[in-house]
Amino acid sequence: MRMDAVSKKTVGKIEKLAESVLRAVKGGGNPFVEIPVRSLANVRFNEKKRVVELGNQRQKRYFFNVAMAKKFMQTFLVSDACKELIESGKTTSIRDLYYITKHTIGDSKQNTFEEQDESDPIIEDIEVALDTLREELHLFASRKGTMVGPITIRDSGDTIDLRRMGSGGWGVPSIVEENVIQFGRHEARYVLLVEKDAVWSRFNEDKFWKRQNAIIIHGGGQPPRGVRRMVQRLHRELGLPVYVLVDNDPWGFYIYSVVKQGSINLAFESMRMAVPDARFIGLSSFDKVTYRLPSNVAIKMDDGDVARAKQMLAYPWFQAKQWQAEIQEMVRSGVKYELEALSRRGISFITEEYLPTKLKEKDWIA
Amino acid sequence: MRMDAVSKKTVGKIEKLAESVLRAVKGGGNPFVEIPVRSLANVRFNEKKRVVELGNQRQKRYFFNVAMAKKFMQTFLVSDACKELIESGKTTSIRDLYYITKHTIGDSKQNTFEEQDESDPIIEDIEVALDTLREELHLFASRKGTMVGPITIRDSGDTIDLRRMGSGGWGVPSIVEENVIQFGRHEARYVLLVEKDAVWSRFNEDKFWKRQNAIIIHGGGQPPRGVRRMVQRLHRELGLPVYVLVDNDPWGFYIYSVVKQGSINLAFESMRMAVPDARFIGLSSFDKVTYRLPSNVAIKMDDGDVARAKQMLAYPWFQAKQWQAEIQEMVRSGVKYELEALSRRGISFITEEYLPTKLKEKDWIA
Repeated sequence: MRMDAVSKKTVGKIEKLAESVLRAVKGGGNPFVEIPVRSLANVRFNEKKRVVELGNQRQKRYFFNVAMAKKFMQTFLVSDACKELIESGKTTSIRDLYYITKHTIGDSKQNTFEEQDESDPIIEDIEVALDTLREELHLFASRKGTMVGPITIRDSGDTIDLRRMGSGGWGVPSIVEENVIQFGRHEARYVLLVEKDAVWSRFNEDKFWKRQNAIIIHGGGQPPRGVRRMVQRLHRELGLPVYVLVDNDPWGFYIYSVVKQGSINLAFESMRMAVPDARFIGLSSFDKVTYRLPSNVAIKMDDGDVARAKQMLAYPWFQAKQWQAEIQEMVRSGVKYELEALSRRGISFITEEYLPTKLKEKDWIA
Repeated sequence: MRMDAVSKKTVGKIEKLAESVLRAVKGGGNPFVEIPVRSLANVRFNEKKRVVELGNQRQKRYFFNVAMAKKFMQTFLVSDACKELIESGKTTSIRDLYYITKHTIGDSKQNTFEEQDESDPIIEDIEVALDTLREELHLFASRKGTMVGPITIRDSGDTIDLRRMGSGGWGVPSIVEENVIQFGRHEARYVLLVEKDAVWSRFNEDKFWKRQNAIIIHGGGQPPRGVRRMVQRLHRELGLPVYVLVDNDPWGFYIYSVVKQGSINLAFESMRMAVPDARFIGLSSFDKVTYRLPSNVAIKMDDGDVARAKQMLAYPWFQAKQWQAEIQEMVRSGVKYELEALSRRGISFITEEYLPTKLKEKDWIA
């Protein structure tokens, strides 16, 4: 099996790690793996890059240390399994990897892993230790998300014209690295990421992507890794602006913020997933006035919503004046709106009036 | 906008309903809508057709009746909105329909609907009253599910070759009626419906569909309406056998049973969704022995699992000897298995050995 450049690089990193351990053993030392600390204390918002990222704290995991030996063994078990995956050109889920690497050790009753919640952190360890994405380790996450637009892509050797995907669309896979997905000819002017699949269907059915020369994509709620990485690649490699369209509620704002600067939990992969220039195009807390939404389509916020919104006021990445105004207005009014509320003005109001007007008037938050 | 035959028929049904009401008013009578009762008491398993279906009980909803007048009004509001949808060639979600039909009535403080849980049952009323699927009313449900295989389809005018869908696949839309999706040239011998998207990805990556000439499809857990209807159409119109591959646990068995004979909640649409000939190909409670799965990949059933399995023993559609043995063995052993457990035997064991062997030895339950 011939490996592509991405795979060769990743296998190289795994081998280098193993070799350094071997050298330490031969030299009579106590081998260790050095891993960046992934606790909250080591996470920060980088104002310059505008992403949530890991700090510089690192920890050493030693081989000759009772408390650490099992994790050390697990780290090598998982990285070896990933190496095999890459070399065989196969990919799999983290659930599957857990099963693949679960053994009973020798005649003992000891298992390499008891539960998946033991193997998942090891995968993250390897990601940060090797500065690699799990997708490069050939591990995929769930797939939910669909994409159409004026672009031709290559996916695993197949040429797919996303202008001819009917009502169904192309299902965005979890692994969209350049060794799998390549971009071909396109006439796209921008990318529109929509929170909800139902709203995306409206944009697809109305052929919004064709009228506007836009790539439209949804992630079925909080976008999965594949969708985020796809949006980042379209932005970086094709230079397309990214607009995010979410519900007017704390969850919608959170989805936008994860797309834009990454999340605290997965701070180590912000550089590969986040799009700091992503623009919030709606639903704004002020749209209810501008677009005359009747009060009977408003939804009363519950205590959890209000608490969440107030928390957000303190986030470093929501300190811009516009964001403070957005969130304060939501708290003040005590109501939230779903994207579907716009349908009260007509079923295609969102594609024919709302979004075109917002774009024309540059009515977004950058 | 020219309407297709399916749409014309549905609009005709809505108009006929409205006309019969008008006639009653003109004749000085008390207009009513007759709706089949959708309570458990009116649901039964039809042994001959082998589907869960509604019985013959019907209820009348009168216009001049204080208790029923609001529902009567809602019924016409929703059916009118559906008629508009159909005539404009648009489709939408039931959430959206709720917003579209939500009005404050005149100067009163009364809303046509307060919450979506008021409009959803009205949609079901119209479905059963008109003997039509909500998809024919141009209402879609969530989309989750992907399909590839040796078949060309037409979707909303686009020709899509499902042999060239890369790692992503074609996203199965919610509405797959023949006015939207038509089947073209194909070399498929059967349909394989897989419970989990991660396992489906294994089958796609290993090009199982090409080697076996099979259409492979998943529904991201319990398959959504679009996937079920698609499988039924492939079965009925192309004469393809359907194999269902699920986890070896009560939930997996339940998924199979819904695909096969429909569900109690949606008994009125079994005829349009169920595939009574669908075959259960795995994971069987006896596969752990046949395919030598180590005991450390078994998962202990919790009390809920055991109770659920025992309930299933009593279901009329699980009375066949083979099903009783399946469920009894699960209860006896006290353990369940995920499809991913097969990966312990090798990452492609499921596509290269397990499924081909099962098919060859006709080791399924019909």
